[in-house]
Amino acid sequence: MAVKTYHISLASKGDGDIQDLTERVAQRLAESELKAGTATVFVPGSTASITTLEYEPGLKKDMPEVLNRLVPAGVRYHHDSTWGDGNGYAHVRAALVGPGITVPFEHGRLCLGTWQQIVLMDFDNRPRRRDVVVQFAGE
Amino acid sequence: MAVKTYHISLASKGDGDIQDLTERVAQRLAESELKAGTATVFVPGSTASITTLEYEPGLKKDMPEVLNRLVPAGVRYHHDSTWGDGNGYAHVRAALVGPGITVPFEHGRLCLGTWQQIVLMDFDNRPRRRDVVVQFAGE
Amino acid sequence: MAVKTYHISLASKGDGDIQDLTERVAQRLAESELKAGTATVFVPGSTASITTLEYEPGLKKDMPEVLNRLVPAGVRYHHDSTWGDGNGYAHVRAALVGPGITVPFEHGRLCLGTWQQIVLMDFDNRPRRRDVVVQFAGE
Repeated sequence: MAVKTYHISLASKGDGDIQDLTERVAQRLAESELKAGTATVFVPGSTASITTLEYEPGLKKDMPEVLNRLVPAGVRYHHDSTWGDGNGYAHVRAALVGPGITVPFEHGRLCLGTWQQIVLMDFDNRPRRRDVVVQFAGE
Repeated sequence: MAVKTYHISLASKGDGDIQDLTERVAQRLAESELKAGTATVFVPGSTASITTLEYEPGLKKDMPEVLNRLVPAGVRYHHDSTWGDGNGYAHVRAALVGPGITVPFEHGRLCLGTWQQIVLMDFDNRPRRRDVVVQFAGE
Repeated sequence: MAVKTYHISLASKGDGDIQDLTERVAQRLAESELKAGTATVFVPGSTASITTLEYEPGLKKDMPEVLNRLVPAGVRYHHDSTWGDGNGYAHVRAALVGPGITVPFEHGRLCLGTWQQIVLMDFDNRPRRRDVVVQFAGE
């Protein structure tokens, strides 16, 4: 078994921006030459999340709308009193959805459904550069 | 270290159906003969989730009720305009709860609490066949 | 590659108590002498979660407040009819946030953002002793 670590650097618009990472993860998996194991996809930072989603225009609007209803942007959070940066809601959303996922792969292919993509969701209130860590452990 | 990958095929009723996978995961772990490492349990598809839950009749009703309040089934989602399949809420719930978990094991046993089970939650609006991937990496 | 498993035993106040585990995880990583791989942090039990959060006093209040709005403590859950222990909401919150996370490490350091901490959130309605499992797999 071996560990191979890659980084995907990307520009995010923030404000609920959702980006499809699947192809970029699959390319690194091919480079790694590993055939069976786990792909851990993790975003350093506390205002973004990694999960899976069918990446299509409808859900790219639904997810931010639902999250804005559950954890609204326009209200006061205690976090905002600490820092005054007004993105308390983004921190709460990121903690709920989670910072990373682990996807198994077999025969050199990620075990994803046809309509299931690995996505970054950026909840911050401004554009951000994100450095997503993609780590394969396998054989 | 070695990687061993198994598949659990099951019939789900959809509509918030929750199924306990713990025994089936533990059986594959015994077959694998690995003693220490991680068990990654992952559901391909974008309308179901894997998490842990005390698997008892009350919570099997509470979870769908709470999720139906947070992400209601009876309202219009943009996803439904894309595909017309009416399960936009199922996609949103699955992205929130997440597609998989990684559970450590030691001495050949999963590190779970006594009242903590590994469960599949199926949010889709119709019965589905699910192929859950269970992958052990360890020694 | 090798697997190294550690346990962090801690006293939690329950009731939304949030504890920062980052330093304790990093210490075990140093002890393990592994340089690249994954750290899986997992809490056995069905009324607590592991996620990441900027650990500061504001968010320590925001998270329980938001969760208490989304999954209120003062209403009746079917779970409470099963056991009468009155912590149905804690089970639901724990299943939503999730029992564990997997964080990659490189060059002997966890791939976390500067303001991103690994935290335990304890949702139970009473003080609890928790035994968090920290498992490193890597080389």
